Amino acid sequence: MVGGGTGAFIGAVHRTAATLDGEATFVAGCLSSTPERALASGRTIGLAEDRNYPTWQAMVAAEKALPAGQRIDAVCIVTPNHLHNPVAVAFVEAGFHVICDKPLTRTVAEAQELAAAVRRAKTVFAVTYNYTGYPLVRAMGEMVRSGKIGAVRKVFVEYHQGWLATDLASTGQKQAAWRGDPAIAGAGALGDIGSHAENLLRTVTGLSIESLCADVGTIVPGRRVDDDAAVLMKLSGGARAVLTCSQVCIGEENGLSIRVYGERGSLRWRQEDPNALTFTALDAAPQIITRGGVGSGDVARAATRLPPGHPEGFYEAFANVYRGAFAAIRGESGAVYPGIEDGVHGVHFIEKCLASKGAWVKV
Amino acid sequence: MVGGGTGAFIGAVHRTAATLDGEATFVAGCLSSTPERALASGRTIGLAEDRNYPTWQAMVAAEKALPAGQRIDAVCIVTPNHLHNPVAVAFVEAGFHVICDKPLTRTVAEAQELAAAVRRAKTVFAVTYNYTGYPLVRAMGEMVRSGKIGAVRKVFVEYHQGWLATDLASTGQKQAAWRGDPAIAGAGALGDIGSHAENLLRTVTGLSIESLCADVGTIVPGRRVDDDAAVLMKLSGGARAVLTCSQVCIGEENGLSIRVYGERGSLRWRQEDPNALTFTALDAAPQIITRGGVGSGDVARAATRLPPGHPEGFYEAFANVYRGAFAAIRGESGAVYPGIEDGVHGVHFIEKCLASKGAWVKV
Amino acid sequence: MVGGGTGAFIGAVHRTAATLDGEATFVAGCLSSTPERALASGRTIGLAEDRNYPTWQAMVAAEKALPAGQRIDAVCIVTPNHLHNPVAVAFVEAGFHVICDKPLTRTVAEAQELAAAVRRAKTVFAVTYNYTGYPLVRAMGEMVRSGKIGAVRKVFVEYHQGWLATDLASTGQKQAAWRGDPAIAGAGALGDIGSHAENLLRTVTGLSIESLCADVGTIVPGRRVDDDAAVLMKLSGGARAVLTCSQVCIGEENGLSIRVYGERGSLRWRQEDPNALTFTALDAAPQIITRGGVGSGDVARAATRLPPGHPEGFYEAFANVYRGAFAAIRGESGAVYPGIEDGVHGVHFIEKCLASKGAWVKV
Amino acid sequence: MVGGGTGAFIGAVHRTAATLDGEATFVAGCLSSTPERALASGRTIGLAEDRNYPTWQAMVAAEKALPAGQRIDAVCIVTPNHLHNPVAVAFVEAGFHVICDKPLTRTVAEAQELAAAVRRAKTVFAVTYNYTGYPLVRAMGEMVRSGKIGAVRKVFVEYHQGWLATDLASTGQKQAAWRGDPAIAGAGALGDIGSHAENLLRTVTGLSIESLCADVGTIVPGRRVDDDAAVLMKLSGGARAVLTCSQVCIGEENGLSIRVYGERGSLRWRQEDPNALTFTALDAAPQIITRGGVGSGDVARAATRLPPGHPEGFYEAFANVYRGAFAAIRGESGAVYPGIEDGVHGVHFIEKCLASKGAWVKV
Repeated sequence: MVGGGTGAFIGAVHRTAATLDGEATFVAGCLSSTPERALASGRTIGLAEDRNYPTWQAMVAAEKALPAGQRIDAVCIVTPNHLHNPVAVAFVEAGFHVICDKPLTRTVAEAQELAAAVRRAKTVFAVTYNYTGYPLVRAMGEMVRSGKIGAVRKVFVEYHQGWLATDLASTGQKQAAWRGDPAIAGAGALGDIGSHAENLLRTVTGLSIESLCADVGTIVPGRRVDDDAAVLMKLSGGARAVLTCSQVCIGEENGLSIRVYGERGSLRWRQEDPNALTFTALDAAPQIITRGGVGSGDVARAATRLPPGHPEGFYEAFANVYRGAFAAIRGESGAVYPGIEDGVHGVHFIEKCLASKGAWVKV
Repeated sequence: MVGGGTGAFIGAVHRTAATLDGEATFVAGCLSSTPERALASGRTIGLAEDRNYPTWQAMVAAEKALPAGQRIDAVCIVTPNHLHNPVAVAFVEAGFHVICDKPLTRTVAEAQELAAAVRRAKTVFAVTYNYTGYPLVRAMGEMVRSGKIGAVRKVFVEYHQGWLATDLASTGQKQAAWRGDPAIAGAGALGDIGSHAENLLRTVTGLSIESLCADVGTIVPGRRVDDDAAVLMKLSGGARAVLTCSQVCIGEENGLSIRVYGERGSLRWRQEDPNALTFTALDAAPQIITRGGVGSGDVARAATRLPPGHPEGFYEAFANVYRGAFAAIRGESGAVYPGIEDGVHGVHFIEKCLASKGAWVKV
Repeated sequence: MVGGGTGAFIGAVHRTAATLDGEATFVAGCLSSTPERALASGRTIGLAEDRNYPTWQAMVAAEKALPAGQRIDAVCIVTPNHLHNPVAVAFVEAGFHVICDKPLTRTVAEAQELAAAVRRAKTVFAVTYNYTGYPLVRAMGEMVRSGKIGAVRKVFVEYHQGWLATDLASTGQKQAAWRGDPAIAGAGALGDIGSHAENLLRTVTGLSIESLCADVGTIVPGRRVDDDAAVLMKLSGGARAVLTCSQVCIGEENGLSIRVYGERGSLRWRQEDPNALTFTALDAAPQIITRGGVGSGDVARAATRLPPGHPEGFYEAFANVYRGAFAAIRGESGAVYPGIEDGVHGVHFIEKCLASKGAWVKV
Repeated sequence: MVGGGTGAFIGAVHRTAATLDGEATFVAGCLSSTPERALASGRTIGLAEDRNYPTWQAMVAAEKALPAGQRIDAVCIVTPNHLHNPVAVAFVEAGFHVICDKPLTRTVAEAQELAAAVRRAKTVFAVTYNYTGYPLVRAMGEMVRSGKIGAVRKVFVEYHQGWLATDLASTGQKQAAWRGDPAIAGAGALGDIGSHAENLLRTVTGLSIESLCADVGTIVPGRRVDDDAAVLMKLSGGARAVLTCSQVCIGEENGLSIRVYGERGSLRWRQEDPNALTFTALDAAPQIITRGGVGSGDVARAATRLPPGHPEGFYEAFANVYRGAFAAIRGESGAVYPGIEDGVHGVHFIEKCLASKGAWVKV
């Protein structure tokens, strides 16, 4: 693991998710951006001294030098966004599989450089669009593909939070601070949550975004990145979509949701209530499909650990991304996980939204 | 009443709503567009023969000729949209108070002509934006005005239905047929439901729409009016808003909702669950405010007929518009109802959305 | 109307419900228990002087003396419970149809006396178990009868309110005062709301209560009637049921609900969300059946005034009881309304619960 | 671990829960009831050959013989119910800490024997009443203790499932088979889920059950244990409670819920929506308290791993029981977990319910 030291929210989530099924162990890492903090964080989580590295450059060199079977199989990159590209490229070029946080990079140029490295190295590269790991998100994708709702006509996807309704970054709160620095984060709400919404839309519908018109703004005075965006989109096949993301919505905790309307039916799902979706066929009563329940399908069942009625949550969805990446690393066919191309799409989306300035642009 | 004959959904609603509180009686009408059907419809609902008119022109002439005290106090106009203007102007100029369905007219020019007539006549003119009659919609307006959520920053308002997911108009279904004829309806989803959403937004926030960018489309093949729209907006005071309306959303029945986010709190309400709203103050737990319950306020209480827990619905909200209009007709101060200016705003909104074609336009 | 004067909640509800469909007009009444207040209340609601009676005895005598066609068709009795029996018997014996509030009487003896009078007079007698007027309650009854859930096995019915969590009666609040006087009300929570729950259970399942074991208590100090009860029941056909009612549940407004589990499916419905029910067939996903929506059936549709998504509420359900009674008065076949036998069952139920004292008793 | 071999649902849950926080490793076990299956299961989950035991007797002997530091710290017992007592007593007497599934034993006599062994050995003994591990369940307990709802008056606790609506045991389904055998399971629904409800009631309210009246039945023909129960209760301090549990409720998945009404407020929570509870203070609007959100309190926060809006579920709650047990094993003060006395109470409750036969019995 690179990044994710003491005090980092997402680093601890990755560690729990990666080990939830007992398929992985954390053996090496460089957990913070200065050698002192990196080493201290590594000790806190119990890394062996000789594989607790002061810098990621030291880590890639040392691990590469270890004999096969002793070195790490894969690295998980959970640094702030600006380091994703250099760290990932280095590990990919050293032949390691990578699980990397989103957004993939700050710019499309960086993303394409990284994608080229992955193509050359032929390694497994997973991007932790963790919300698509929810079993019922996968069920929706399978239902769309199998024609249960007919051709997609209209999609609403939203990701609304309220934790940045005040200028939290200027108080020094760690999560808010780096996310609020354009040099580190690249974008604000668009990168942090909008890219999750975009990936959710693409994963569920299987459609690509052909053009978009984005109204991106900064609502809280003093903030240096965007905290609110509304994006109108035309999708492949002629469908229309509306994506909204905002971090100033007081009362919203982690309000990611999607509604997909097709010619013959519709699907609705909310991340905060992830164990149920609503499916309505034309001229039929709405049905509640639960995770593991009737109608949830084989794809969802394969991503499910507990019987219906026993809530699964964020960790289990996150762990499904790891499970897919591990299956791919083992060379299994049919492994499901968001890959490098999902990451590139996400960075493209962010860049186009920022460039739109309220006008329609091709994607 | 003009319009609203046998088979018309909204005519019967108006009759029930207008008489719910026992403040009005239907004594005269011209209920359909041909003399034969008009007279037949009038007999069905029990109008006296001498006040069951074959044409609205005959009605306005005859009623005007009756002595004060015997003639109607007010007329309620529930014809298809294209007749709102001529009928309303005639009754207004004859000195009658008018309660008219929305959208007010098909064009801004017609709306302004009508508004000028009302100004000259100084009569009461109510537009049945019935959804703003819900007690908790009025409560939201009061909460915004009193500063409970601070300055408004972001608004989401949506009105999604599914009943036009197929080309119902071509089957001859009466409601769908006239709504699908551009010469009669003017606009499609924008006029039928989008204008309700626009009025809800303005009523709750008290803000005006300064500019907008609308993506308006026709999704169902064969339809001659719009059935789907997404509108980005800038409001007075700098707030942003997203309005979506669609009639092709299978599984949605009458999904009008609003979410308002301010500097210090937020409000959420759904028409299909009209007896509760969610209010969240910054750094406080969300509260469920019920109609008539704690925190709903004086304005909502004045529009409430039953104790909390005893559901009120569509009729009661609709009746509140009539109650306000009747109070105004009696000359009471403080009467609350959507007036001619709300109607003009609505027509403006529709016209600007249709003109936008995906670009920003001033309103 | 007898009872229901100024300040009475339920009197005004009856007047709105009875006239909602334009099938009735209030022409005569004795609206309160003293001549002065009765006459004043009658003037307030606009009764003609000569039919605004000082006592119910005067009313029954005078109306009976009027020629057919001029006298009232039916009387609606909304007095406190202790007057139901004498007033109802007098009007029934005078040949008038009666719509009477529940519980029918304070004692089974009174109920049987009244039932005998109705049998002799062959008049229409409706008891306003208004909650069974909800379209989806009727839909549930139809679904059970048609075998959609198979033989009923288990029923949970509950009616929880919080408005009597403090000793409201001793503050003089009018609704609470008479309901808290055992000489007037007979029972407390059992009569006021428990009998609604019992009628809902019987109406939906079509089963009768064969034996019961009731734990009836008074939780709020100073109260003179019961305010909380839990009743275990054995129903005809072997099903078990649990009925709970309580008026001390802070946070509950008017929480009447029913859940019916059969051999092949289940039904769930809540009065506070009356426009939807959940139907789950064995080995199928739960379906949301909305009023007027797919699967709600002919019986519900006949009791429905508005399209799905346009909420109906308490008034409309109440009006359906009147609509059924009026149809019966007109001699129509198939009129649906709770009759005298429902009222007698309700009084039986209350009496048996009070007698049980925690032991099983036959009903 | 003893029990929990291939095909056992709860064994895998225990392994995930125990290791979720990285505080434990599984090093030894006897995972099934015959030596062949035990050894095969142990290999499947990767136990070392020398600590993969054919019988639990062999395991307790061999582990006891290992030097301190090499032997297991604690054993987790997840066998069918009839083996809880002999296995637990043996490990306790050998000085091992125990985490044991519920119900503790089949009979009160066995439970008391085990409790005596624990008292003598002074070891840590946790019973996996896992639902009380939910952060918001702990929050409710804290809110009751701190007086937020005043003295408790009325409690409704229910646990309704539908998976045994047909005679699943006779089809050979593994979970259903042993649960349906009275010699192995002791009780049916009462033991499997009723005891969870009882523990939830006691944990949240802090009150004990003083007397009860239970209607326990077997609804599905052919079943040899109870599958449905309704229990009226008197609690210490005078509160009343109603507990219902049933496994024949088609459409219910894992419907455990609790509602607590006090003199000054109320609390409601549902296991299937575990990240929110509703708190209503007298004369105030209901508040939604989310896990980690405003008002959830310190106790809940200590049991929380993720920010609000990031759903936690069944595993995390289960892991909180382990976390508490591990803290106790390390000798930390303030460790929170259900202990031997909770287990004894549970067995008492089951036995009294079965003995009640519809009459009131002291507990």
